[in-house]
Amino acid sequence: MGEATYVLVTGANRGIGLELVKQLLGKSNPHSGSLRPAGTRMESEHPNLVIIALEATDPASVKAAATRVEEHLKSSGLNLLINKAGIARLSTLESETAEGMSLVYATNVTGPLLVSQAFLPLLKKAAQGSNQKGLSCSKAAIVNMSSEAGSIQNVLIWHVGQVIAYRCSKAALNMLTKCQSLGYGGDGILSVAVHPGWVQTDMGISLSPEAPLTVDASVRGILNVLPTLSEKDNGAFMSWEGKVLPW
Amino acid sequence: MGEATYVLVTGANRGIGLELVKQLLGKSNPHSGSLRPAGTRMESEHPNLVIIALEATDPASVKAAATRVEEHLKSSGLNLLINKAGIARLSTLESETAEGMSLVYATNVTGPLLVSQAFLPLLKKAAQGSNQKGLSCSKAAIVNMSSEAGSIQNVLIWHVGQVIAYRCSKAALNMLTKCQSLGYGGDGILSVAVHPGWVQTDMGISLSPEAPLTVDASVRGILNVLPTLSEKDNGAFMSWEGKVLPW
Repeated sequence: MGEATYVLVTGANRGIGLELVKQLLGKSNPHSGSLRPAGTRMESEHPNLVIIALEATDPASVKAAATRVEEHLKSSGLNLLINKAGIARLSTLESETAEGMSLVYATNVTGPLLVSQAFLPLLKKAAQGSNQKGLSCSKAAIVNMSSEAGSIQNVLIWHVGQVIAYRCSKAALNMLTKCQSLGYGGDGILSVAVHPGWVQTDMGISLSPEAPLTVDASVRGILNVLPTLSEKDNGAFMSWEGKVLPW
Repeated sequence: MGEATYVLVTGANRGIGLELVKQLLGKSNPHSGSLRPAGTRMESEHPNLVIIALEATDPASVKAAATRVEEHLKSSGLNLLINKAGIARLSTLESETAEGMSLVYATNVTGPLLVSQAFLPLLKKAAQGSNQKGLSCSKAAIVNMSSEAGSIQNVLIWHVGQVIAYRCSKAALNMLTKCQSLGYGGDGILSVAVHPGWVQTDMGISLSPEAPLTVDASVRGILNVLPTLSEKDNGAFMSWEGKVLPW
Protein backbone atom coordinates (compact mmCIF):
# COMPACT_ATOMS: atom_id res chain seq x y z
CA MET A 1 0.00 0.00 0.00
CA GLY A 2 1.52 3.33 -0.96
CA GLU A 3 1.39 6.50 1.08
CA ALA A 4 -1.65 8.01 -0.60
CA THR A 5 -3.71 4.86 -0.29
CA TYR A 6 -7.11 5.19 1.35
CA VAL A 7 -8.30 2.06 3.10
CA LEU A 8 -11.58 1.27 4.85
CA VAL A 9 -11.69 -1.74 7.19
CA THR A 10 -15.07 -2.85 8.52
CA GLY A 11 -15.22 -4.77 11.81
CA ALA A 12 -12.11 -2.89 13.00
CA ASN A 13 -13.16 -2.87 16.65
CA ARG A 14 -11.62 -6.27 17.38
CA GLY A 15 -9.65 -9.26 16.17
CA ILE A 16 -8.26 -9.29 12.65
CA GLY A 17 -9.98 -6.02 11.71
CA LEU A 18 -8.31 -4.14 14.54
CA GLU A 19 -4.92 -5.71 13.82
CA LEU A 20 -5.28 -4.79 10.13
CA VAL A 21 -5.73 -1.15 11.14
CA LYS A 22 -2.78 -1.28 13.57
CA GLN A 23 -0.42 -2.82 11.04
CA LEU A 24 -1.63 -0.54 8.25
CA LEU A 25 -0.72 2.37 10.53
CA GLY A 26 2.72 0.83 11.03
CA LYS A 27 2.17 0.61 14.76
CA SER A 28 1.81 -3.10 15.25
CA ASN A 29 2.78 -4.20 18.72
CA PRO A 30 2.03 -7.88 18.75
CA HIS A 31 3.31 -8.53 22.24
CA SER A 32 1.31 -5.97 24.17
CA GLY A 33 -2.23 -6.91 23.19
CA SER A 34 -3.44 -4.00 25.27
CA LEU A 35 -4.95 -2.03 22.44
CA ARG A 36 -8.43 -3.54 22.44
CA PRO A 37 -11.38 -1.40 21.37
CA ALA A 38 -9.62 1.77 22.60
CA GLY A 39 -10.69 3.55 19.45
CA THR A 40 -10.39 7.13 20.59
CA ARG A 41 -6.86 6.74 21.88
CA MET A 42 -5.81 5.21 18.57
CA GLU A 43 -7.47 8.03 16.67
CA SER A 44 -5.73 10.78 18.63
CA GLU A 45 -2.36 9.09 18.15
CA HIS A 46 -2.79 8.54 14.42
CA PRO A 47 -3.76 11.55 12.37
CA ASN A 48 -4.25 9.26 9.36
CA LEU A 49 -6.87 7.22 11.16
CA VAL A 50 -10.56 8.04 11.14
CA ILE A 51 -12.96 5.83 13.08
CA ILE A 52 -16.49 5.69 11.72
CA ALA A 53 -19.58 3.94 13.08
CA LEU A 54 -20.87 1.39 10.61
CA GLU A 55 -23.43 -1.35 11.20
CA ALA A 56 -22.97 -3.40 8.05
CA THR A 57 -26.41 -5.06 8.21
CA ASP A 58 -28.25 -1.74 8.40
CA PRO A 59 -28.61 -0.06 4.99
CA ALA A 60 -29.11 3.39 6.56
CA SER A 61 -25.97 3.06 8.69
CA VAL A 62 -23.96 1.91 5.70
CA LYS A 63 -25.10 4.88 3.62
CA ALA A 64 -24.37 7.32 6.43
CA ALA A 65 -20.87 5.87 6.79
CA ALA A 66 -20.26 6.24 3.05
CA THR A 67 -21.28 9.89 3.25
CA ARG A 68 -18.88 10.50 6.16
CA VAL A 69 -16.04 8.77 4.34
CA GLU A 70 -16.71 10.82 1.23
CA GLU A 71 -16.48 14.01 3.31
CA HIS A 72 -13.14 12.90 4.78
CA LEU A 73 -11.69 11.91 1.43
CA LYS A 74 -12.69 15.23 -0.14
CA SER A 75 -11.81 14.81 -3.81
CA SER A 76 -10.01 11.47 -3.40
CA GLY A 77 -11.40 8.02 -3.97
CA LEU A 78 -11.28 4.95 -1.75
CA ASN A 79 -8.55 2.55 -2.83
CA LEU A 80 -9.16 -0.46 -0.68
CA LEU A 81 -12.31 -1.71 1.01
CA ILE A 82 -11.71 -4.60 3.42
CA ASN A 83 -14.99 -6.25 4.39
CA LYS A 84 -13.87 -7.87 7.61
CA ALA A 85 -16.99 -7.56 9.78
CA GLY A 86 -18.25 -11.07 10.42
CA ILE A 87 -19.67 -13.39 13.03
CA ALA A 88 -19.70 -17.08 13.83
CA ARG A 89 -22.01 -19.07 16.07
CA LEU A 90 -21.26 -22.60 17.20
CA SER A 91 -23.73 -25.03 15.69
CA THR A 92 -24.16 -28.49 14.22
CA LEU A 93 -26.40 -29.93 11.50
CA GLU A 94 -28.72 -30.91 14.33
CA SER A 95 -28.70 -27.68 16.34
CA GLU A 96 -28.54 -25.01 13.62
CA THR A 97 -31.63 -22.78 13.57
CA ALA A 98 -33.44 -20.53 11.12
CA GLU A 99 -32.47 -17.58 13.31
CA GLY A 100 -28.80 -18.56 13.31
CA MET A 101 -28.78 -18.98 9.54
CA SER A 102 -30.43 -15.60 9.06
CA LEU A 103 -28.22 -13.63 11.47
CA VAL A 104 -24.92 -15.02 10.24
CA TYR A 105 -25.88 -14.55 6.59
CA ALA A 106 -27.00 -10.96 7.14
CA THR A 107 -23.67 -10.04 8.73
CA ASN A 108 -21.29 -12.16 6.65
CA VAL A 109 -22.83 -11.84 3.17
CA THR A 110 -25.49 -9.15 2.98
CA GLY A 111 -23.23 -6.79 4.96
CA PRO A 112 -20.35 -6.95 2.45
CA LEU A 113 -22.86 -6.60 -0.40
CA LEU A 114 -24.41 -3.43 1.06
CA VAL A 115 -21.05 -1.93 2.05
CA SER A 116 -19.62 -2.59 -1.40
CA GLN A 117 -22.68 -1.03 -3.05
CA ALA A 118 -22.41 2.09 -0.89
CA PHE A 119 -18.67 2.58 -1.41
CA LEU A 120 -18.68 1.68 -5.10
CA PRO A 121 -18.72 5.33 -6.27
CA LEU A 122 -15.62 6.03 -4.15
CA LEU A 123 -13.86 2.90 -5.41
CA LYS A 124 -14.65 3.88 -8.99
CA LYS A 125 -13.31 7.36 -8.31
CA ALA A 126 -10.03 5.87 -7.06
CA ALA A 127 -9.77 3.64 -10.13
CA GLN A 128 -10.48 6.53 -12.49
CA GLY A 129 -7.95 8.76 -10.72
CA SER A 130 -5.18 6.18 -10.90
CA ASN A 131 -2.37 6.03 -13.46
CA GLN A 132 -1.89 2.32 -12.86
CA LYS A 133 -2.84 -0.14 -15.56
CA GLY A 134 -4.65 -3.38 -14.72
CA LEU A 135 -5.98 -4.10 -11.27
CA SER A 136 -4.37 -3.81 -7.83
CA CYS A 137 -5.10 -3.21 -4.17
CA SER A 138 -3.38 0.18 -4.33
CA LYS A 139 -5.58 1.26 -7.24
CA ALA A 140 -9.05 0.06 -6.24
CA ALA A 141 -10.07 -3.20 -4.62
CA ILE A 142 -12.66 -5.04 -2.55
CA VAL A 143 -11.19 -7.62 -0.19
CA ASN A 144 -13.82 -9.87 1.37
CA MET A 145 -12.58 -11.70 4.45
CA SER A 146 -13.76 -15.24 3.87
CA SER A 147 -12.55 -18.52 5.36
CA GLU A 148 -11.31 -21.89 4.17
CA ALA A 149 -14.07 -23.20 6.46
CA GLY A 150 -16.26 -21.95 3.61
CA SER A 151 -14.36 -23.89 0.95
CA ILE A 152 -16.88 -26.52 -0.18
CA GLN A 153 -13.97 -28.62 -1.38
CA ASN A 154 -11.84 -28.43 1.80
CA VAL A 155 -14.43 -27.83 4.58
CA LEU A 156 -11.56 -26.83 6.89
CA ILE A 157 -11.62 -28.29 10.43
CA TRP A 158 -15.04 -29.92 10.10
CA HIS A 159 -14.26 -32.18 13.04
CA VAL A 160 -13.45 -29.20 15.25
CA GLY A 161 -16.74 -27.42 14.58
CA GLN A 162 -19.54 -27.91 12.07
CA VAL A 163 -20.63 -24.24 12.31
CA ILE A 164 -23.19 -24.75 9.53
CA ALA A 165 -24.44 -21.15 9.18
CA TYR A 166 -20.86 -19.87 9.15
CA ARG A 167 -19.69 -22.29 6.46
CA CYS A 168 -22.75 -21.63 4.29
CA SER A 169 -22.23 -17.87 4.67
CA LYS A 170 -18.59 -18.01 3.63
CA ALA A 171 -19.36 -20.14 0.57
CA ALA A 172 -21.97 -17.53 -0.34
CA LEU A 173 -19.48 -14.72 0.31
CA ASN A 174 -17.07 -16.41 -2.07
CA MET A 175 -19.80 -16.38 -4.69
CA LEU A 176 -20.48 -12.70 -4.01
CA THR A 177 -16.76 -12.04 -4.49
CA LYS A 178 -16.79 -13.86 -7.81
CA CYS A 179 -19.85 -11.84 -8.91
CA GLN A 180 -18.14 -8.60 -7.86
CA SER A 181 -15.03 -9.56 -9.82
CA LEU A 182 -17.18 -10.08 -12.94
CA GLY A 183 -19.24 -6.95 -12.37
CA TYR A 184 -16.55 -4.49 -11.29
CA GLY A 185 -13.40 -5.66 -13.07
CA GLY A 186 -14.29 -3.47 -16.04
CA ASP A 187 -14.42 -0.46 -13.69
CA GLY A 188 -10.81 -1.05 -12.65
CA ILE A 189 -11.74 -2.64 -9.32
CA LEU A 190 -10.11 -5.87 -8.12
CA SER A 191 -12.23 -8.25 -6.01
CA VAL A 192 -10.77 -11.10 -3.96
CA ALA A 193 -11.77 -13.38 -1.11
CA VAL A 194 -9.13 -13.96 1.56
CA HIS A 195 -8.75 -16.76 4.10
CA PRO A 196 -6.95 -15.34 7.16
CA GLY A 197 -6.07 -18.75 8.61
CA TRP A 198 -7.44 -20.28 11.78
CA VAL A 199 -6.53 -17.41 14.04
CA GLN A 200 -6.33 -16.89 17.80
CA THR A 201 -9.14 -14.35 17.84
CA ASP A 202 -12.17 -14.70 20.11
CA MET A 203 -13.91 -16.26 17.10
CA GLY A 204 -11.09 -18.67 16.28
CA ILE A 205 -10.62 -19.71 19.90
CA SER A 206 -14.38 -20.24 20.35
CA LEU A 207 -14.01 -23.18 17.97
CA SER A 208 -11.08 -24.60 19.91
CA PRO A 209 -8.20 -23.18 21.96
CA GLU A 210 -5.93 -25.01 19.52
CA ALA A 211 -6.25 -22.23 16.93
CA PRO A 212 -2.66 -22.21 15.64
CA LEU A 213 -2.11 -18.75 14.17
CA THR A 214 -1.51 -15.46 15.99
CA VAL A 215 -3.51 -12.46 14.86
CA ASP A 216 -0.22 -10.70 14.18
CA ALA A 217 1.09 -13.43 11.87
CA SER A 218 -2.22 -13.71 10.01
CA VAL A 219 -2.42 -9.99 9.36
CA ARG A 220 1.26 -9.72 8.39
CA GLY A 221 0.59 -12.50 5.90
CA ILE A 222 -2.49 -10.80 4.47
CA LEU A 223 -0.71 -7.45 4.15
CA ASN A 224 2.17 -9.18 2.36
CA VAL A 225 -0.22 -10.88 -0.08
CA LEU A 226 -2.46 -7.92 -0.97
CA PRO A 227 0.23 -5.83 -2.74
CA THR A 228 1.14 -8.81 -4.93
CA LEU A 229 -2.37 -9.18 -6.35
CA SER A 230 -3.06 -8.16 -9.92
CA GLU A 231 -5.58 -8.62 -12.71
CA LYS A 232 -4.92 -12.36 -12.90
CA ASP A 233 -6.10 -12.70 -9.29
CA ASN A 234 -9.43 -10.96 -9.85
CA GLY A 235 -12.15 -13.15 -8.36
CA ALA A 236 -9.71 -15.50 -6.64
CA PHE A 237 -9.81 -17.09 -3.18
CA MET A 238 -6.39 -16.61 -1.53
CA SER A 239 -4.98 -17.66 1.81
CA TRP A 240 -3.01 -15.35 4.13
CA GLU A 241 0.04 -17.18 2.72
CA GLY A 242 -0.82 -16.30 -0.87
CA LYS A 243 -2.02 -19.78 -1.79
CA VAL A 244 -5.01 -20.11 -4.12
CA LEU A 245 -7.75 -22.11 -2.41
CA PRO A 246 -10.41 -24.23 -4.13
CA TRP A 247 -14.03 -23.11 -3.90
CA MET B 1 -36.44 -46.07 -7.62
CA GLY B 2 -37.94 -49.43 -6.64
CA GLU B 3 -41.58 -50.10 -5.85
CA ALA B 4 -41.29 -49.72 -2.06
CA THR B 5 -39.41 -46.44 -2.25
CA TYR B 6 -40.88 -43.55 -0.31
CA VAL B 7 -40.09 -40.15 -1.76
CA LEU B 8 -40.88 -36.65 -0.51
CA VAL B 9 -40.61 -33.76 -2.99
CA THR B 10 -40.86 -30.21 -1.62
CA GLY B 11 -42.01 -27.43 -3.95
CA ALA B 12 -44.13 -29.95 -5.85
CA ASN B 13 -46.86 -27.45 -6.73
CA ARG B 14 -45.13 -26.25 -9.89
CA GLY B 15 -42.20 -26.52 -12.26
CA ILE B 16 -39.56 -29.17 -11.73
CA GLY B 17 -41.05 -30.28 -8.41
CA LEU B 18 -44.42 -31.04 -9.99
CA GLU B 19 -42.82 -32.81 -12.95
CA LEU B 20 -40.71 -34.90 -10.58
CA VAL B 21 -43.89 -36.10 -8.90
CA LYS B 22 -45.58 -36.81 -12.23
CA GLN B 23 -42.68 -38.80 -13.61
CA LEU B 24 -42.12 -40.62 -10.33
CA LEU B 25 -45.74 -41.72 -10.56
CA GLY B 26 -45.06 -42.96 -14.09
CA LYS B 27 -47.65 -40.62 -15.51
CA SER B 28 -45.54 -38.10 -17.32
CA ASN B 29 -47.38 -36.48 -20.18
CA PRO B 30 -44.96 -33.91 -21.51
CA HIS B 31 -47.19 -32.78 -24.34
CA SER B 32 -50.32 -31.90 -22.40
CA GLY B 33 -48.96 -29.42 -19.87
CA SER B 34 -52.47 -29.14 -18.44
CA LEU B 35 -51.67 -30.66 -15.09
CA ARG B 36 -50.65 -27.50 -13.26
CA PRO B 37 -51.27 -27.20 -9.52
CA ALA B 38 -54.32 -29.50 -9.73
CA GLY B 39 -53.18 -31.30 -6.61
CA THR B 40 -56.42 -32.85 -5.54
CA ARG B 41 -57.14 -34.39 -8.93
CA MET B 42 -53.65 -35.90 -8.98
CA GLU B 43 -54.15 -37.28 -5.52
CA SER B 44 -57.44 -39.00 -6.34
CA GLU B 45 -55.92 -40.56 -9.47
CA HIS B 46 -52.79 -41.82 -7.75
CA PRO B 47 -53.28 -43.87 -4.61
CA ASN B 48 -49.53 -43.77 -4.02
CA LEU B 49 -49.50 -39.98 -3.89
CA VAL B 50 -50.07 -37.95 -0.75
CA ILE B 51 -50.04 -34.17 -0.93
CA ILE B 52 -48.96 -32.40 2.23
CA ALA B 53 -48.81 -28.68 3.04
CA LEU B 54 -45.26 -27.64 3.83
CA GLU B 55 -43.89 -24.11 4.12
CA ALA B 56 -40.15 -24.86 4.17
CA THR B 57 -39.17 -21.57 5.82
CA ASP B 58 -41.56 -22.07 8.76
CA PRO B 59 -40.14 -24.45 11.39
CA ALA B 60 -43.63 -25.24 12.77
CA SER B 61 -44.99 -26.09 9.32
CA VAL B 62 -41.97 -28.30 8.60
CA LYS B 63 -42.41 -30.21 11.85
CA ALA B 64 -46.15 -30.65 11.26
CA ALA B 65 -45.43 -32.02 7.78
CA ALA B 66 -42.89 -34.48 9.21
CA THR B 67 -45.49 -35.73 11.67
CA ARG B 68 -48.04 -36.20 8.91
CA VAL B 69 -45.53 -38.05 6.73
CA GLU B 70 -44.59 -40.29 9.65
CA GLU B 71 -48.27 -41.17 10.13
CA HIS B 72 -48.61 -42.05 6.44
CA LEU B 73 -45.44 -44.14 6.39
CA LYS B 74 -46.51 -46.10 9.47
CA SER B 75 -43.49 -48.28 10.28
CA SER B 76 -41.57 -47.45 7.09
CA GLY B 77 -38.83 -44.87 6.68
CA LEU B 78 -38.43 -42.16 4.04
CA ASN B 79 -36.01 -43.20 1.33
CA LEU B 80 -35.61 -40.05 -0.68
CA LEU B 81 -36.03 -36.41 0.28
CA ILE B 82 -35.90 -34.05 -2.69
CA ASN B 83 -35.53 -30.44 -1.53
CA LYS B 84 -36.82 -28.69 -4.61
CA ALA B 85 -38.64 -25.70 -3.10
CA GLY B 86 -36.76 -22.61 -4.20
CA ILE B 87 -37.17 -19.09 -5.48
CA ALA B 88 -35.28 -16.63 -7.65
CA ARG B 89 -35.61 -12.87 -7.93
CA LEU B 90 -34.10 -10.88 -10.75
CA SER B 91 -31.34 -8.61 -9.44
CA THR B 92 -27.94 -7.14 -10.19
CA LEU B 93 -24.97 -6.19 -7.99
CA GLU B 94 -26.43 -2.70 -8.04
CA SER B 95 -30.08 -3.51 -7.36
CA GLU B 96 -29.84 -6.44 -4.92
CA THR B 97 -31.31 -5.63 -1.50
CA ALA B 98 -31.00 -6.87 2.07
CA GLU B 99 -34.60 -8.05 1.83
CA GLY B 100 -33.94 -9.98 -1.39
CA MET B 101 -30.85 -11.62 0.09
CA SER B 102 -32.75 -12.63 3.20
CA LEU B 103 -35.86 -13.99 1.46
CA VAL B 104 -34.01 -16.05 -1.12
CA TYR B 105 -31.60 -17.47 1.46
CA ALA B 106 -34.44 -18.44 3.83
CA THR B 107 -36.21 -20.38 1.08
CA ASN B 108 -33.25 -21.84 -0.80
CA VAL B 109 -30.89 -22.71 2.07
CA THR B 110 -32.56 -22.50 5.48
CA GLY B 111 -35.60 -24.34 4.07
CA PRO B 112 -33.60 -27.43 2.98
CA LEU B 113 -31.73 -27.35 6.32
CA LEU B 114 -34.95 -27.34 8.37
CA VAL B 115 -36.69 -29.92 6.18
CA SER B 116 -33.67 -32.24 6.35
CA GLN B 117 -33.50 -31.87 10.14
CA ALA B 118 -37.20 -32.68 10.51
CA PHE B 119 -37.12 -35.71 8.21
CA LEU B 120 -33.77 -37.05 9.43
CA PRO B 121 -35.35 -39.62 11.78
CA LEU B 122 -37.40 -41.03 8.89
CA LEU B 123 -34.35 -41.10 6.60
CA LYS B 124 -32.35 -42.89 9.29
CA LYS B 125 -35.18 -45.38 9.72
CA ALA B 126 -35.11 -46.12 5.97
CA ALA B 127 -31.32 -46.58 6.06
CA GLN B 128 -31.53 -48.88 9.07
CA GLY B 129 -34.31 -50.93 7.52
CA SER B 130 -32.44 -51.44 4.26
CA ASN B 131 -30.44 -54.53 3.24
CA GLN B 132 -28.37 -52.48 0.78
CA LYS B 133 -24.73 -51.84 1.50
CA GLY B 134 -23.21 -48.43 0.86
CA LEU B 135 -25.29 -45.43 -0.09
CA SER B 136 -28.03 -44.96 -2.68
CA CYS B 137 -31.15 -42.99 -3.49
CA SER B 138 -33.30 -46.09 -3.04
CA LYS B 139 -31.87 -46.67 0.46
CA ALA B 140 -31.83 -43.17 2.00
CA ALA B 141 -30.85 -39.87 0.40
CA ILE B 142 -31.16 -36.11 0.48
CA VAL B 143 -31.19 -34.49 -2.96
CA ASN B 144 -30.84 -30.72 -2.82
CA MET B 145 -31.88 -29.01 -6.03
CA SER B 146 -29.10 -26.56 -6.67
CA SER B 147 -27.98 -24.81 -9.86
CA GLU B 148 -24.85 -24.36 -11.91
CA ALA B 149 -25.68 -20.66 -11.54
CA GLY B 150 -24.40 -21.29 -8.01
CA SER B 151 -21.12 -22.82 -9.17
CA ILE B 152 -18.54 -20.24 -8.09
CA GLN B 153 -16.24 -21.62 -10.77
CA ASN B 154 -18.71 -21.56 -13.68
CA VAL B 155 -21.20 -18.79 -12.72
CA LEU B 156 -23.56 -20.15 -15.39
CA ILE B 157 -25.20 -17.54 -17.67
CA TRP B 158 -23.87 -14.49 -15.78
CA HIS B 159 -24.55 -12.32 -18.82
CA VAL B 160 -28.19 -13.40 -18.95
CA GLY B 161 -28.87 -12.52 -15.32
CA GLN B 162 -26.71 -11.63 -12.35
CA VAL B 163 -29.35 -12.80 -9.82
CA ILE B 164 -26.96 -12.19 -6.90
CA ALA B 165 -29.11 -13.50 -4.06
CA TYR B 166 -29.93 -16.62 -6.06
CA ARG B 167 -26.30 -17.40 -6.92
CA CYS B 168 -25.16 -16.81 -3.34
CA SER B 169 -27.95 -19.03 -2.02
CA LYS B 170 -27.08 -21.90 -4.34
CA ALA B 171 -23.36 -21.73 -3.42
CA ALA B 172 -24.45 -21.88 0.21
CA LEU B 173 -26.82 -24.78 -0.55
CA ASN B 174 -23.90 -26.64 -2.11
CA MET B 175 -21.99 -26.11 1.14
CA LEU B 176 -24.96 -27.35 3.15
CA THR B 177 -25.04 -30.46 0.92
CA LYS B 178 -21.35 -31.07 1.56
CA CYS B 179 -21.91 -30.68 5.31
CA GLN B 180 -24.85 -33.10 5.17
CA SER B 181 -22.74 -35.63 3.28
CA LEU B 182 -20.08 -35.45 6.02
CA GLY B 183 -22.60 -35.51 8.84
CA TYR B 184 -25.05 -38.12 7.58
CA GLY B 185 -22.93 -40.47 5.47
CA GLY B 186 -22.21 -42.56 8.56
CA ASP B 187 -25.94 -42.98 9.09
CA GLY B 188 -26.32 -44.55 5.65
CA ILE B 189 -27.74 -41.41 4.05
CA LEU B 190 -26.46 -40.12 0.69
CA SER B 191 -26.45 -36.34 0.13
CA VAL B 192 -26.05 -34.73 -3.29
CA ALA B 193 -26.64 -31.37 -4.95
CA VAL B 194 -28.23 -31.51 -8.41
CA HIS B 195 -28.23 -28.95 -11.24
CA PRO B 196 -31.45 -29.43 -13.25
CA GLY B 197 -30.24 -27.40 -16.24
CA TRP B 198 -31.57 -24.07 -17.42
CA VAL B 199 -35.17 -25.15 -17.69
CA GLN B 200 -38.32 -23.72 -19.29
CA THR B 201 -40.05 -23.21 -15.94
CA ASP B 202 -41.52 -19.87 -14.89
CA MET B 203 -38.25 -19.32 -13.02
CA GLY B 204 -36.00 -20.30 -15.92
CA ILE B 205 -38.00 -18.24 -18.43
CA SER B 206 -37.97 -15.22 -16.11
CA LEU B 207 -34.23 -15.02 -16.77
CA SER B 208 -34.73 -15.24 -20.51
CA PRO B 209 -37.19 -16.92 -22.86
CA GLU B 210 -34.17 -18.65 -24.38
CA ALA B 211 -34.09 -21.25 -21.58
CA PRO B 212 -33.13 -24.31 -23.65
CA LEU B 213 -34.34 -27.31 -21.68
CA THR B 214 -37.90 -28.63 -21.32
CA VAL B 215 -39.08 -29.51 -17.84
CA ASP B 216 -39.74 -33.02 -19.08
CA ALA B 217 -36.20 -33.53 -20.38
CA SER B 218 -34.64 -32.09 -17.23
CA VAL B 219 -36.64 -34.32 -14.93
CA ARG B 220 -36.10 -37.42 -17.10
CA GLY B 221 -32.38 -36.67 -16.87
CA ILE B 222 -32.46 -36.25 -13.09
CA LEU B 223 -34.46 -39.44 -12.61
CA ASN B 224 -31.97 -41.31 -14.78
CA VAL B 225 -29.03 -39.99 -12.76
CA LEU B 226 -30.35 -40.56 -9.23
CA PRO B 227 -30.45 -44.38 -9.38
CA THR B 228 -26.81 -44.45 -10.55
CA LEU B 229 -25.52 -42.59 -7.49
CA SER B 230 -23.56 -44.47 -4.86
CA GLU B 231 -21.18 -43.92 -1.96
CA LYS B 232 -18.54 -42.37 -4.23
CA ASP B 233 -20.99 -39.60 -5.15
CA ASN B 234 -21.78 -38.61 -1.56
CA GLY B 235 -21.41 -34.84 -1.30
CA ALA B 236 -21.10 -34.35 -5.06
CA PHE B 237 -22.61 -31.68 -7.33
CA MET B 238 -24.15 -33.41 -10.36
CA SER B 239 -25.92 -32.11 -13.43
CA TRP B 240 -29.17 -33.55 -14.80
CA GLU B 241 -26.89 -35.28 -17.35
CA GLY B 242 -24.82 -36.98 -14.64
CA LYS B 243 -21.81 -34.71 -15.09
CA VAL B 244 -19.87 -33.69 -11.96
CA LEU B 245 -19.81 -29.90 -11.68
CA PRO B 246 -17.13 -27.78 -9.98
CA TRP B 247 -18.06 -25.87 -6.85
